[in-house]
Amino acid sequence: MTIEGFASETAKWLEPELGSVFTGKQLDDITVKAALYSLNAGGKRIRPLMMRLTALMTGCGEEKMADVLYYAATLEMIHTYSLIHDDLPAMDNDDLRRGKPTCHKVYGEGIATLAGDLLLNTACERLFKIAIAKPEYLYASYFMCRNAGLEGMVGGQSIDLDSEGKTIDLELLYELQRKKTGALIESAVVTPYYLIKELNGEQAKEDKTACLLKKLSEHIGLSFQIRDDILDVESDPSVLGKNTGKDERDSKATFVTLLGEQGAKDRLSEEIASAKAVLSELGKMGYDTDGYNVLVDYLEKRDS
Amino acid sequence: MTIEGFASETAKWLEPELGSVFTGKQLDDITVKAALYSLNAGGKRIRPLMMRLTALMTGCGEEKMADVLYYAATLEMIHTYSLIHDDLPAMDNDDLRRGKPTCHKVYGEGIATLAGDLLLNTACERLFKIAIAKPEYLYASYFMCRNAGLEGMVGGQSIDLDSEGKTIDLELLYELQRKKTGALIESAVVTPYYLIKELNGEQAKEDKTACLLKKLSEHIGLSFQIRDDILDVESDPSVLGKNTGKDERDSKATFVTLLGEQGAKDRLSEEIASAKAVLSELGKMGYDTDGYNVLVDYLEKRDS
Repeated sequence: MTIEGFASETAKWLEPELGSVFTGKQLDDITVKAALYSLNAGGKRIRPLMMRLTALMTGCGEEKMADVLYYAATLEMIHTYSLIHDDLPAMDNDDLRRGKPTCHKVYGEGIATLAGDLLLNTACERLFKIAIAKPEYLYASYFMCRNAGLEGMVGGQSIDLDSEGKTIDLELLYELQRKKTGALIESAVVTPYYLIKELNGEQAKEDKTACLLKKLSEHIGLSFQIRDDILDVESDPSVLGKNTGKDERDSKATFVTLLGEQGAKDRLSEEIASAKAVLSELGKMGYDTDGYNVLVDYLEKRDS
Repeated sequence: MTIEGFASETAKWLEPELGSVFTGKQLDDITVKAALYSLNAGGKRIRPLMMRLTALMTGCGEEKMADVLYYAATLEMIHTYSLIHDDLPAMDNDDLRRGKPTCHKVYGEGIATLAGDLLLNTACERLFKIAIAKPEYLYASYFMCRNAGLEGMVGGQSIDLDSEGKTIDLELLYELQRKKTGALIESAVVTPYYLIKELNGEQAKEDKTACLLKKLSEHIGLSFQIRDDILDVESDPSVLGKNTGKDERDSKATFVTLLGEQGAKDRLSEEIASAKAVLSELGKMGYDTDGYNVLVDYLEKRDS
């Protein structure tokens, strides 16, 4: 299947679940409306797509697939909250996202801030709810929550804000990106396997497949980010659905500013090769890695 | 004991736990610093104080008391995140809180927004962590998370933001306050009992003591808010530690604007009487309610 095929399957699979996150009288709430505006703005749904790929690759039955979907929607809520807050004037100050005006442009900064809070809190409520029904998922829920926090996404965003206008080195840029974008990608690639195998903390750390999936997610995360940095200097806003040339205007350190355009492209090729090497190892263990190979090819060449 | 005695005991009990929330290298992070600035700004610690009162009243042993402390610090983190976000220019636009400059005044709006996110996410991580170690607390953890969300604090804040500049009736003001301030107070008053009795969802709903504690928390929450509204028109900023007269300037509906000063005072007396009636019922069940009676007397007359 092509990446477009996977993407359209993922959208069809995900949208009904996203549509059921808030129900009834909740839909009248202004902050719920703002949250749904951003949650339903489309986007690539690349994290849910990865969750499907892992689920299908590691042998997911129908009942488990419903749970993977539940977690996929939850992760998309966490990702969306981070976009809403990142776009705020006090953060990245973006007025265009996924080709549409950003949340605060439509609903104002106060409601947008609260909509982010709402999405994070509701995501955590969902992680608790499913763990109450299925205690074997408690570690998976914790893992997804933790990767959104200081040791993951929030920690990365903190380094990012703290680095504005400063010179940072490649090592710090790696740490920043490993946390800021890498942590949620790790959640996407690894969590479905935790659910399927019902792994808890210690088992999760020792399991060979889980370790390989973590490695795979690292290379995918870096590929994703390096390509993002390249697109920011090379792409057209109408294709990208957001403004370009922003990193330079904000004097932000990126893989392009630190390595140059060619250096960033070389680094991207290395990450792609490393991802393929991990996939080859997974293939030797008997997993069907065709889907992930299509994704990795796409990550190398995507233009939006 | 006097309320000052309870407050100073609570502070001594709570501060070391708050000091251990972030450790090691985390303390170098700018967003952690901003979060700790607000978390350590003092304040009345009224929610942790209530958690101690419930724990002591319902027969808490030493081991459980350590867990109550863990949850008390977690709830204070949720409360502090809500203050940081509420104080932002796009929300209530306050530059003074607990007698000190607000978080965004010191660290800027971007870091302050992220510090709020950090506190909420870390609070949820803590709620998961303890439930992994002690699965019997899973419902208590969910309860605390849920009360911070759409059916609780975030939902109340949403009504509040949506009501700005509009005429709202007393019924909506009750709903707003029941959620915005009431939900975390419910968490404070009820959660320790859930921990001590290891109650899950159904048991928690049916247990007589739990139901009375919920009722008590409602009256305490309203007493707290009505007194807050009265203080906003009557008090001196230097005593209160925050600006006064704000509600009127913002044309905000409060118990004072809807009921008049005397009407609000009458309503406060009714809530105090209702709280005392619930305490009397708890007393008949054999609980020592002296501590809560001192708190309720204080809530009627507090001047800061």
